[in-house]
Amino acid sequence: MANDDALKQGFWSMGQLDRQGAESLLRRARHFASGPRRLDLLDGVEIAALFFETSTRTRVSFEVAATRLGAAVINFDSKSSSLAKGESLQDTVETIASFGVDGMVVRSSAAGAPELISRWTGLKVVNAGDGAHQHPSQALLDLFTLSERLGSLDALSGLKVGIVGDIAHSRVARSLMDGLDLFGAETTLVAPATLMPPRGFAPYVRATSDFDGCLGDLDVVYLLRLQQERIGQGLIPSFGEYVARYSLTRERHRRLRPEVVIMHPGPVYPGMEVDSAVIAAESSLVRSQTRNGVYVRMAILEKVFGAGVME
Amino acid sequence: MANDDALKQGFWSMGQLDRQGAESLLRRARHFASGPRRLDLLDGVEIAALFFETSTRTRVSFEVAATRLGAAVINFDSKSSSLAKGESLQDTVETIASFGVDGMVVRSSAAGAPELISRWTGLKVVNAGDGAHQHPSQALLDLFTLSERLGSLDALSGLKVGIVGDIAHSRVARSLMDGLDLFGAETTLVAPATLMPPRGFAPYVRATSDFDGCLGDLDVVYLLRLQQERIGQGLIPSFGEYVARYSLTRERHRRLRPEVVIMHPGPVYPGMEVDSAVIAAESSLVRSQTRNGVYVRMAILEKVFGAGVME
Amino acid sequence: MANDDALKQGFWSMGQLDRQGAESLLRRARHFASGPRRLDLLDGVEIAALFFETSTRTRVSFEVAATRLGAAVINFDSKSSSLAKGESLQDTVETIASFGVDGMVVRSSAAGAPELISRWTGLKVVNAGDGAHQHPSQALLDLFTLSERLGSLDALSGLKVGIVGDIAHSRVARSLMDGLDLFGAETTLVAPATLMPPRGFAPYVRATSDFDGCLGDLDVVYLLRLQQERIGQGLIPSFGEYVARYSLTRERHRRLRPEVVIMHPGPVYPGMEVDSAVIAAESSLVRSQTRNGVYVRMAILEKVFGAGVME
Repeated sequence: MANDDALKQGFWSMGQLDRQGAESLLRRARHFASGPRRLDLLDGVEIAALFFETSTRTRVSFEVAATRLGAAVINFDSKSSSLAKGESLQDTVETIASFGVDGMVVRSSAAGAPELISRWTGLKVVNAGDGAHQHPSQALLDLFTLSERLGSLDALSGLKVGIVGDIAHSRVARSLMDGLDLFGAETTLVAPATLMPPRGFAPYVRATSDFDGCLGDLDVVYLLRLQQERIGQGLIPSFGEYVARYSLTRERHRRLRPEVVIMHPGPVYPGMEVDSAVIAAESSLVRSQTRNGVYVRMAILEKVFGAGVME
Repeated sequence: MANDDALKQGFWSMGQLDRQGAESLLRRARHFASGPRRLDLLDGVEIAALFFETSTRTRVSFEVAATRLGAAVINFDSKSSSLAKGESLQDTVETIASFGVDGMVVRSSAAGAPELISRWTGLKVVNAGDGAHQHPSQALLDLFTLSERLGSLDALSGLKVGIVGDIAHSRVARSLMDGLDLFGAETTLVAPATLMPPRGFAPYVRATSDFDGCLGDLDVVYLLRLQQERIGQGLIPSFGEYVARYSLTRERHRRLRPEVVIMHPGPVYPGMEVDSAVIAAESSLVRSQTRNGVYVRMAILEKVFGAGVME
Repeated sequence: MANDDALKQGFWSMGQLDRQGAESLLRRARHFASGPRRLDLLDGVEIAALFFETSTRTRVSFEVAATRLGAAVINFDSKSSSLAKGESLQDTVETIASFGVDGMVVRSSAAGAPELISRWTGLKVVNAGDGAHQHPSQALLDLFTLSERLGSLDALSGLKVGIVGDIAHSRVARSLMDGLDLFGAETTLVAPATLMPPRGFAPYVRATSDFDGCLGDLDVVYLLRLQQERIGQGLIPSFGEYVARYSLTRERHRRLRPEVVIMHPGPVYPGMEVDSAVIAAESSLVRSQTRNGVYVRMAILEKVFGAGVME
């Protein structure tokens, strides 16, 4: 697959990228990080932002990225919108397509929605998170942030990354393990059995429920957000129990090697997945992740919408 | 009335337009449909969007239109706004006028509000729907869509249009029958007696409660949205009863001549006013209506705000 | 303190300005009031608008001002935002800072928040109202409006201004009395004892609970908004009682000298702090206050963000 064509209908999944394609996007993001803030690369492009699930970081990040490239963003408040009431997803997105936009950035609880929407409407669609499926812009910003800290993308080779928490429901985990594999990093999934997907993952991924047992082996601890409803669903016995075994407490943090870095996609609820002192420590890359999100999304939007835009 | 002056204080009602005035707007919309997307015709113009009733189609359509012309849109979330609480409509709009905007696009449940607001504030006001009174930009986009399908505006002459549904509460119906009359089309209003206005309409309009009886005569079936509260208000006995007599079911659709087109202002609730297969059929112009809304509103905004803008 | 440095980290309090600094801002606002609407003085600047309390006037006013200067505004709907749930204020603002904005306009119920946020993030912060502490842009627009009416800023010297109402909870009163003192005006605070701050104010301010007794001495009556919850809090016995002693009724209005002007920061609840006929009278400057807010905020944003913006 020629990489230049890979994203021509949109960017739904890390599976659309080979190493060369990912490298090209990350190189471009590096360029945007150091370049001027206002560009006219997407002048005249209109992008609809369709967030069916609440989001602040991802939504603002995409909006700032589009605006810096000169594109116009049309926001749909999906919850209060009349489009969302009594209409099917297909009706809703076809109506929005009728306004004549060039494409959409979509967050949805339905796995596969972005690709489906692209097929329905013929428009370019960028995935801002779909159900428990994929969140590819998050994976790219995580790779960017790691390579920035390590000095190069090549340094990712052989890196040992532990992704800790609610793996079963995490689109972030799915996209990130794909991305890490492209660059030769080794992923270990860490979760209680109830939050681990029932079927095994790709052969290049290890899985364990023993966080303490693998602490000493990790170069990166990537913590996932834990949603409160998991208790009501009977998936974890209690928060106390979860914290005791899977939270990155100060005590566990001390047992990590000094050069180990901490990541989290946000929003962090301090005291749950990670201690607030740990998330504020110098080893935490959380703020860098947020900052780099803008640059990476500029690269994604440029790639998807920058060529063949029709006036 | 010289047509160039007709909209100089705003566009509240189809009654402000003669045939020449409507033609001029539709010709301009045609130009925008085929022209470049970014124009600077309204550069420096500031328009407040004041939607006291929920809207997605109309609101987004006006916003996209204004943005493409280079105008700035200032949104007021009228429901949560402190302006709306405890202040009279007059206080609210006078405050907004004080910000120094050039004019407003207003949707309100109060019939006559746009003209009143224009008088209070001295600003140009475009009606985006006022109570059961008028929705003139909708009528113009409907005329545009019909003429696009038929090949010319002249082809509207003698066209038989059935407007079906809740006529009594419909600003869409009022504006559309005015617009159709300008071009010599013949309107038949189709509704149960309880959803037909108590007083007669203009002499050029026919009214019937027998949808099946007039099916064979129609060139256009224009379906109105039916709101659920009509049952609670005792205006229709049940949804089933309504569907049985006034919905454009597949069975009724088959009895239309093949060239008959289906229109609906949206949002469509499939299964109620019209069967979902019918609304998706090639004879349905619903998506074209949404798309053309942007072009027609560009023409309206240019006409209203394009001349005599004061800096 | 060299005035040009006074606002370099933001504008939190009237205390940052000496008379020369305030004059310079007001002169610049006068320039914006008569100049062209679109300027590129802040091209490329990105400002986050963070309103943790509901606002329409102030928020829109800042947004219009920023847009006219060419800056981009990034809105955070603080109430529904995931940033606001379960995150501390510091987490929230540091995340927003991570997006790479140049600064923030902040409204918060926490006194001192703007200065604190500036220290946390290193960003320039403009105060759009913090608790019962300060609302400096309101004070400047009030001074602007008064000087416009009187013909000059020098005419403020010796002017007798009565600020009437809920002084204890009013950031508007605190900022305004500071601003009036810079220009030699004399402030009298008028409130029942329960709505007067327990500790005395600066020596240049008089306080009384006898509105009727000082009516004849005033050149300006500045009415504050009274919030309904003050009754539930036991601070005023009833609305009727308040109106009887502190509302600017028609009867009291007639006892003012003809040249006395009426001001109110809005939103006005007619019949409470002031009679609706009085607020609509020619002596009322309420609409001018709203209009001038845009010009004054242009001057503030230009001063804070116009120099040393880094790309």
